[in-house]
Amino acid sequence: MSAAHGSLRVGMIGHAFMGAAHSYGWRNAARVFELPVEPEMAVIAGSDAARSAAAAARLGWAQSVADWRELIERPDVDIVDICAPGDLHFPIAIAALEAGKHVLCEKPLANTADEADEMARVAEAAARRGVFAMCGFTYRRQPAVALARRTIAEGRLGQIRHIRVQYLQDWLSDPDSPYTWRLDATRSGSGALGDLGAHAVDLAQWLTASRITTLSARTQRFVPTRPLPDGSGRGEVTVDDAAFALAEFDSGLIGTFEVTRYALGRKNAFRVEIDGTLGSLAWDFERNNELNLYTEDAGELAGFATVLATRPGHPYLADWWPDGHGLGFDAGFVNQAADFIRAIAAGRQPEPSFADAAQVQRVLDAVEASQASRGWEAVSPEKEKVR
Amino acid sequence: MSAAHGSLRVGMIGHAFMGAAHSYGWRNAARVFELPVEPEMAVIAGSDAARSAAAAARLGWAQSVADWRELIERPDVDIVDICAPGDLHFPIAIAALEAGKHVLCEKPLANTADEADEMARVAEAAARRGVFAMCGFTYRRQPAVALARRTIAEGRLGQIRHIRVQYLQDWLSDPDSPYTWRLDATRSGSGALGDLGAHAVDLAQWLTASRITTLSARTQRFVPTRPLPDGSGRGEVTVDDAAFALAEFDSGLIGTFEVTRYALGRKNAFRVEIDGTLGSLAWDFERNNELNLYTEDAGELAGFATVLATRPGHPYLADWWPDGHGLGFDAGFVNQAADFIRAIAAGRQPEPSFADAAQVQRVLDAVEASQASRGWEAVSPEKEKVR
Amino acid sequence: MSAAHGSLRVGMIGHAFMGAAHSYGWRNAARVFELPVEPEMAVIAGSDAARSAAAAARLGWAQSVADWRELIERPDVDIVDICAPGDLHFPIAIAALEAGKHVLCEKPLANTADEADEMARVAEAAARRGVFAMCGFTYRRQPAVALARRTIAEGRLGQIRHIRVQYLQDWLSDPDSPYTWRLDATRSGSGALGDLGAHAVDLAQWLTASRITTLSARTQRFVPTRPLPDGSGRGEVTVDDAAFALAEFDSGLIGTFEVTRYALGRKNAFRVEIDGTLGSLAWDFERNNELNLYTEDAGELAGFATVLATRPGHPYLADWWPDGHGLGFDAGFVNQAADFIRAIAAGRQPEPSFADAAQVQRVLDAVEASQASRGWEAVSPEKEKVR
Amino acid sequence: MSAAHGSLRVGMIGHAFMGAAHSYGWRNAARVFELPVEPEMAVIAGSDAARSAAAAARLGWAQSVADWRELIERPDVDIVDICAPGDLHFPIAIAALEAGKHVLCEKPLANTADEADEMARVAEAAARRGVFAMCGFTYRRQPAVALARRTIAEGRLGQIRHIRVQYLQDWLSDPDSPYTWRLDATRSGSGALGDLGAHAVDLAQWLTASRITTLSARTQRFVPTRPLPDGSGRGEVTVDDAAFALAEFDSGLIGTFEVTRYALGRKNAFRVEIDGTLGSLAWDFERNNELNLYTEDAGELAGFATVLATRPGHPYLADWWPDGHGLGFDAGFVNQAADFIRAIAAGRQPEPSFADAAQVQRVLDAVEASQASRGWEAVSPEKEKVR
Repeated sequence: MSAAHGSLRVGMIGHAFMGAAHSYGWRNAARVFELPVEPEMAVIAGSDAARSAAAAARLGWAQSVADWRELIERPDVDIVDICAPGDLHFPIAIAALEAGKHVLCEKPLANTADEADEMARVAEAAARRGVFAMCGFTYRRQPAVALARRTIAEGRLGQIRHIRVQYLQDWLSDPDSPYTWRLDATRSGSGALGDLGAHAVDLAQWLTASRITTLSARTQRFVPTRPLPDGSGRGEVTVDDAAFALAEFDSGLIGTFEVTRYALGRKNAFRVEIDGTLGSLAWDFERNNELNLYTEDAGELAGFATVLATRPGHPYLADWWPDGHGLGFDAGFVNQAADFIRAIAAGRQPEPSFADAAQVQRVLDAVEASQASRGWEAVSPEKEKVR
Repeated sequence: MSAAHGSLRVGMIGHAFMGAAHSYGWRNAARVFELPVEPEMAVIAGSDAARSAAAAARLGWAQSVADWRELIERPDVDIVDICAPGDLHFPIAIAALEAGKHVLCEKPLANTADEADEMARVAEAAARRGVFAMCGFTYRRQPAVALARRTIAEGRLGQIRHIRVQYLQDWLSDPDSPYTWRLDATRSGSGALGDLGAHAVDLAQWLTASRITTLSARTQRFVPTRPLPDGSGRGEVTVDDAAFALAEFDSGLIGTFEVTRYALGRKNAFRVEIDGTLGSLAWDFERNNELNLYTEDAGELAGFATVLATRPGHPYLADWWPDGHGLGFDAGFVNQAADFIRAIAAGRQPEPSFADAAQVQRVLDAVEASQASRGWEAVSPEKEKVR
Repeated sequence: MSAAHGSLRVGMIGHAFMGAAHSYGWRNAARVFELPVEPEMAVIAGSDAARSAAAAARLGWAQSVADWRELIERPDVDIVDICAPGDLHFPIAIAALEAGKHVLCEKPLANTADEADEMARVAEAAARRGVFAMCGFTYRRQPAVALARRTIAEGRLGQIRHIRVQYLQDWLSDPDSPYTWRLDATRSGSGALGDLGAHAVDLAQWLTASRITTLSARTQRFVPTRPLPDGSGRGEVTVDDAAFALAEFDSGLIGTFEVTRYALGRKNAFRVEIDGTLGSLAWDFERNNELNLYTEDAGELAGFATVLATRPGHPYLADWWPDGHGLGFDAGFVNQAADFIRAIAAGRQPEPSFADAAQVQRVLDAVEASQASRGWEAVSPEKEKVR
Repeated sequence: MSAAHGSLRVGMIGHAFMGAAHSYGWRNAARVFELPVEPEMAVIAGSDAARSAAAAARLGWAQSVADWRELIERPDVDIVDICAPGDLHFPIAIAALEAGKHVLCEKPLANTADEADEMARVAEAAARRGVFAMCGFTYRRQPAVALARRTIAEGRLGQIRHIRVQYLQDWLSDPDSPYTWRLDATRSGSGALGDLGAHAVDLAQWLTASRITTLSARTQRFVPTRPLPDGSGRGEVTVDDAAFALAEFDSGLIGTFEVTRYALGRKNAFRVEIDGTLGSLAWDFERNNELNLYTEDAGELAGFATVLATRPGHPYLADWWPDGHGLGFDAGFVNQAADFIRAIAAGRQPEPSFADAAQVQRVLDAVEASQASRGWEAVSPEKEKVR
């Protein structure tokens, strides 16, 4: 926990897509930003020793172990970075925090709201001891998104009335693409809902500084079975393929949400549109360096401006490249690592906290409750449970 | 009703925005298209004799009268074109059909589903006598939209899974913009719901050749009172400002809908996105001459194509301008007039029929029912009522 | 010439594409705008009596004649509208002006600069007698273009430094598309240069209120022969297929020009980009209702705004449709007819004059001179020739 | 030079913008790609010892030295990466190659064509000894650009007829922005021409696999003096602010070029449009992950497709992120480092060679010659000079 040695030693669990992205973040954060303490890529853990060792070499970690418990027990690890599948978030995070490690956990925080609430409680207790936990809603770290947040916080859009959020992918559109663990509810918790919906809800709430209170929702499964990779027939898909919601926020704004893995041609179209009393904005990750902004300031010459979110004065960008030299998906992880390190070094709670992420989880729970009840459902408050 | 004299004489009731647009259509239809019979702009009716006479001169009508009943009784009128406010659609249409006139009625067909169903029954009876009625869902006549319909009908998108429809305007965003009859439910029936939602529902159903069966919806009023034009204080807004719905269609597809008059910067953003098993498309009226189309045909070079819907082989365009010379809002009315005249001349039911439009009205009714019940509501079948 | 009878009687020569577009303008001008005098579609002339009569019926003209000289001699014609091929512009315009008719002549004004200069001189003399002539550079009448002109004239872009203009089409891209008169220099004067380049030069000069002084240019013929329609082999293409120029303007700005009929996928991409010391703008006819505008006013939130040129306060639009209801190619002709009629009714020289159009022709001549000399060529001053 | 130790040790000279970007490339190349040998960030050199040491720490280099000659003499350096100002490229590259080091040199290769030709000769001689040199035209490594090259090479556009290239920036638009060494011809050689024009020419030639033979060009200086940073008045700008050219290629295609630092609102708009007999494409760095592609394959549904150049099958992307997760400016340097390392490890000449870069320099020289002569100038062949 101490940074006396000039670095914070990171141990990362999981080394697939998210592990590679997080590694990218740790590798470059102190090279792009002037950080008070540098992250050190100390050790990774995976379930297979040989594959973990290979991943360590490829991704640039000093060592590897085959058991995440071993990683947590090491005294030379200050930060535990959880990139494992969703069903492992809960046990790893609890163990790491109790072992006094700072924790960065990928989203969704957990597979159920109950797990998430418990994790938030444990994190809150740890924070009182100076041990901090954060959830990886990385899209907040895209400069255009952070600029949107700042623009709204400055009041330039006035009071927000509408938000529409879509997170559209198409990788399951083919009904004969193979079965994966992501389609098994016992592993992944849910489908598009947890994977994409968690991002959608977090961004909607963060950008508008308000929270969903009630919603009416629908989930949909388009393809009930898929070919098993071992050729033994077709496996049952037990998660949603898409989810839709109408939502009321505590600020009075109304939101519409759609997340799907079946929108052909939309590769990673995470799109947000927000309309307020003074202006509107729109963002689409497929053009991640652009913020579309409308205000009435220009009178008859008003129109949606394509703001290139690449200026030195925009969030994160004083330390990147000159104006006009846009960033990629990976930059979000570099920015996230820097934000996290700075908070830890300052003894400050990084955002979003586990409590923030648990609230997102309860929104997702309300979606499933609404699907079951076919009515509007309130987002439940954090459950009070003694541990 | 006869075209023996070489023309079909049109009488139009109402001469505001829609009256001007319909006039544009009648004036140009036979000049753009080779029609079997020409429409003749015979007479218009408005509630004020002087203003009607001025409008006739300006819009190019031969005569004017001050009472719509007089217009309907004239033997030298073959077609009655209803551009009056919504509460007059019902009595005018019934009277005109019973007088043996063909009827073109602006949308929404009526202020309630009951009225609309009755109008559909009367129209059905008239059709059996060779007298036809059509509702003016003009966006169907935009070439890019008609091309979208043709593309889907040809099976190029496969089976449709998603549709998302937004009709976004901003003219009420300022809370101090004045009160109008459109904000009074007794005159207009509803707000954004009937005005914009009717278009949204019609286009969604027509493009996908399927119908909404159940929905969960929400309407919203952002500004409860507005300044009365006469300076006597503020009048109460009794209609919705925006409406939102999740909808299930009989074909299994899921739709999300949003219509609003409060999306700053969106002037007439009628947007449709449709995703199928083989491809996707998108259209936005603010770029009305473009159809965005994605299919997997191009393999790794697949991407949304911006199809300029301006080719001679595209719907309506063999008779307009050479490729690349796009059309405007007004062209929809020219195309509509031509379609209507051709159907009448051929003794064929023009589309959309009053029955089609009444079904749209029942969808809008289900929206209001869902707002009241806060649950999913089925779209009711046409009510069987003896007249 | 008198408008005592409340109308100005128009006689139009030529009834192909441009004839249809001009007819559209005359038909709708007084129905969209409140004009002091109405144009009356009196008579058209074509080279074939039967086809002219059919065109008159289709396009809405009262009468037709088979000889343009007859049309010019008629006392019941006040305005002669020249939509005939380029080699006829000169004799018709001269004869019409000398017969005391106002003249609207399609662009390019003539097939050579000498002809054009002579036409300008005759027009100037006629103007002193209250008889006016105008050239049909219709793109000036697109609302977004007129808004661009107004924006620059108001100084919002500061001093202009760059202009880049492209007019890209693709209808000749296929080397086996058939031979037409447009490819025969004796009929058409030139190819893309006169057809597209005339528009490009006119718009560049008009928008920036400055004139080209010298240029270096290149013309290109990609396909030297094409199949003759009668099957008798291939005819020689004697005009340019594309033209390119670098140009210096009297205001010190630099322009780059490209016009071609071989840019596959560009159907009518007339594009202008202008950069000044305070801001920039861009326009593309393929999205004709949008003006892209950048100014530094918004500071760090500056970006190119997509201004929907559909507001009532924008040029021409107070009399068209509500905001957001865009216009088409044809609206330019309606606006042009209205502008012309108003100028004639007011006894005022309409713009662009024949002198303006002759200067454009001299720029095109300089392009051909530069192609021959392979050096920079000055645009010649109007030749002083006694007539 | 040997990779027996499992790594190629890199020494980099210069640590400003380009030094940071190259460091980014070396740091991540072996973490993203599976490379046969890993680059090792061994040492950097700058003119100031303290600043070099700080840069080494920040950018992740093991050591630093204050003299580039010292760096070249070190036996533990295999590769010399030249990110110093343009006037140093020549002496450093020559010395490094003669010392047996592989060289990666930023563009433009040199400040004059003579220097560049000499460097090419030295590099050619070194290559015969297994020592290789490459010039850093990094935009070739943007996936969308590499995909464009592949698409053209596969013949999908047919024979190329047109190319238009613009490289537009705006950072000098304000006439009172301060003087820098980039505006001093003795340091930088030229202005926009060498900085942006070198990229424009390289990409145009590489994409179309053809070379410019003759051109007519114009350079322009908009602001003759600028405030000196030390407050001692205004310094004279001795380089061009913008350059323009019409160019003929050996394949018969025609190109138009414009590069400027004065196009307000264009931050790094490097744009290429290419039209062939079978299709067209367009790319703009401001939307670097998109390739716009038009082919006639789709018949009446043809349109420019926005191909997201983010698919695993696209160049470079099998080793980056899943489809739809776009890359940034920096990825070009990661890809470049990987390409370079692979070529060196394989004993193969990396592309573009110094000879390629020297030819670009001769094109830039022809631009300046044309500006002087006001005529068309041929691009000179490589000068035969005995060394």
